[in-house]
Amino acid sequence: MNYNHFFQDAIEQLHDEKRYRVFADIERVTGTFPRALMHNNGASREITIWCSNDYLGMGHHKDVIAALCETAQKTGAGAGGTRNISGNNHHLVQLEAELADLHGKEAGLVFSSGFVSNEATISTIARLLPDCLILSDELNHASMIEGVRRSGAEKKIFRHNDLSHLESLLQAAGAERAKLIVFESIYSMDGDIAPIGEIAGLAEKYNALTYIDEVHAVGMYGPRGGGITDRDTLSHRMDIIEGTLGKAFGGMGGYITGSQAIIDAVRSYAPGFIFTTALPPSVAAAATAAIRHLKNSQSERGLQQRNAQRTKDVLVKAGLPVMPTQTHIVPILVGDPDLCKQATDRLLEKHGIYIQPINYPTVPRGTERLRITPTPFHGDLLIDELREALLETWQALGIAFTEAKKPAVVETTRIIPLTVSKAGG
Amino acid sequence: MNYNHFFQDAIEQLHDEKRYRVFADIERVTGTFPRALMHNNGASREITIWCSNDYLGMGHHKDVIAALCETAQKTGAGAGGTRNISGNNHHLVQLEAELADLHGKEAGLVFSSGFVSNEATISTIARLLPDCLILSDELNHASMIEGVRRSGAEKKIFRHNDLSHLESLLQAAGAERAKLIVFESIYSMDGDIAPIGEIAGLAEKYNALTYIDEVHAVGMYGPRGGGITDRDTLSHRMDIIEGTLGKAFGGMGGYITGSQAIIDAVRSYAPGFIFTTALPPSVAAAATAAIRHLKNSQSERGLQQRNAQRTKDVLVKAGLPVMPTQTHIVPILVGDPDLCKQATDRLLEKHGIYIQPINYPTVPRGTERLRITPTPFHGDLLIDELREALLETWQALGIAFTEAKKPAVVETTRIIPLTVSKAGG
Repeated sequence: MNYNHFFQDAIEQLHDEKRYRVFADIERVTGTFPRALMHNNGASREITIWCSNDYLGMGHHKDVIAALCETAQKTGAGAGGTRNISGNNHHLVQLEAELADLHGKEAGLVFSSGFVSNEATISTIARLLPDCLILSDELNHASMIEGVRRSGAEKKIFRHNDLSHLESLLQAAGAERAKLIVFESIYSMDGDIAPIGEIAGLAEKYNALTYIDEVHAVGMYGPRGGGITDRDTLSHRMDIIEGTLGKAFGGMGGYITGSQAIIDAVRSYAPGFIFTTALPPSVAAAATAAIRHLKNSQSERGLQQRNAQRTKDVLVKAGLPVMPTQTHIVPILVGDPDLCKQATDRLLEKHGIYIQPINYPTVPRGTERLRITPTPFHGDLLIDELREALLETWQALGIAFTEAKKPAVVETTRIIPLTVSKAGG
Repeated sequence: MNYNHFFQDAIEQLHDEKRYRVFADIERVTGTFPRALMHNNGASREITIWCSNDYLGMGHHKDVIAALCETAQKTGAGAGGTRNISGNNHHLVQLEAELADLHGKEAGLVFSSGFVSNEATISTIARLLPDCLILSDELNHASMIEGVRRSGAEKKIFRHNDLSHLESLLQAAGAERAKLIVFESIYSMDGDIAPIGEIAGLAEKYNALTYIDEVHAVGMYGPRGGGITDRDTLSHRMDIIEGTLGKAFGGMGGYITGSQAIIDAVRSYAPGFIFTTALPPSVAAAATAAIRHLKNSQSERGLQQRNAQRTKDVLVKAGLPVMPTQTHIVPILVGDPDLCKQATDRLLEKHGIYIQPINYPTVPRGTERLRITPTPFHGDLLIDELREALLETWQALGIAFTEAKKPAVVETTRIIPLTVSKAGG
């Protein structure tokens, strides 16, 4: 038994499949977003980031940074313990109240990350309910899949956003059995949106609990930034709304909101919550500042939507295979892992544009893509630069343009069927 | 099916068992550690924290806070993405190099928390190795137990720190089978230390991998703060050393260090690492500052050991049932969950001393205790205050003193046998 051999083999397999990941070493510089420094072997160069999940640039907002620094100066760098053992800091308590208010719920609960909030909450709820059946959208994020698995509960996967499939599964389970519907508002690799109202209707009809992941929507949709459920006035019809502090709110951490009873149960029974150090007060205060700002300010959301739309329009017009999307996410199809990596390498080296290739297992094989996330700071000049760089790259590498593949692509159709996703990594 | 009913029942059960947890709402104030403000219904009062895991007070160290704030000012509040998608910030890369150096390993890898680092690493390694057998100490932390469970691998639990039991299990498995020994250096609820050298010897003899959790030791033991393995020059005999940035280093996050191949495999295959937002650069920089300081400075370690020893001496002399411990952790036996809660309530209300009661499932039933963690900032005056407060509380509530129970307690014997633990929450 040579252990190293197995680990090296596991790595070799990734190289063979062209999906070994090299992390770009990035140093963001406040005031220059979306520009940043990229480090490599001691040298550094300026780049433009086109794949950030700091969707609104709030990580560089002066109020957010000020809240972080002032709180650290006043209370220190860390929480100093788990929530139960001296780590339950006042700024975290305030943040949870802010989150409950954001989603119109009785209570909120913060976790170390969105991954942990999904995994810990789904597994704990499904364990507490006797004989619970989980109904899970086939494109749910890896963290939700882990939660489903760890619950040990029976699960049924419903076809992506397929209401009649979901209904048939609910019906088969019967009204008396405990049922938990688990889905996302925005699916981040395709940028499409779930039929939330209709799912709520089915849940009400068949007496199921609903758990919605809004991590790619909070801050960005709705008059107060409460996500798609806020935009469509559906928050009150969801039992649990999950979100993140690490994307549009510019910081770190994940959370859930819901009734006092549900939140108290998760707080009291989830190992991934109980046995972990609390979020530092400074990180909590930064998140609260970002949430409060986005509850009142519409300008970031407006500019992001405007820039995302213009990016789509410009790239579609240029014949680039933009995958149709209803949201701020702009995926461009490449369809081959090697080409996808070559394209992003070229964009970086030749054009100073950083877009991470999205390959399997984050998206299904054959749907490898660039995933572009325009922010309020990606203005017309940067969009035009992006178009030129993509055109040059597509031509140089011989990647298919829209016209060549499918001349009649319109924004309301789906180019390719998707069957599996573990989005977000 | 009334869902709320089930969640309320689950909570009611905790109340019935006297283990419903109310989180103290705490606001630490830099420069006054271990003093802090406790908030309650809009009012606040000053308290002394005697149960912090900010073991050396590094969360309040000026270099640490300065690194956090300067980095946030320069690079923003968050990482803006997963490690793979634009979130791999330069400060995090530097932190991982620092951690590898701290433990004399080829590489390091940072996670959102110590919980995630244990769970993700143990489950991933045991899944990658064919037919892996996990040998796990019976008192391992909840996060390690979760990692063992999620791996799906066969496990054998060995009696706490019992070398002959471990050897018999290794022998039965044979040299050819993949084997992973999972244990801690310091067990945090009892404060005892594993026979690391002997476990390394067995691992070498039977060709097993070793995984050691040093979360309650890093920063505090060894000439460079590399933990018990650093103190005893054993780092090179461990395959994976796991630690935390959230205790003695005063911040947030967890990590592993090991060979390039192992770290690369975990980096590439662990969902809990891949699909989660990276640690913010400011949090990484704060950790690096704390680690660098503690690599050179002995004064915090020296003062902590001195204060911990004096606390034990003073409380033992006063007849309080101090459980024997080889480390900085000072547990005092109460042995009843209700009394334990009453004692800590009285300490807080009457004496302004905050010690969280440690009840089941964090420790076995019947071993409920106060867990006291003296830091370099808990000087003689505070220790004397603690003694007086404990004496008053013990007398008022009629809790057993040492003399009454076991007149001949010495520091090298174990008062009570322990069979189960999920330490740290």
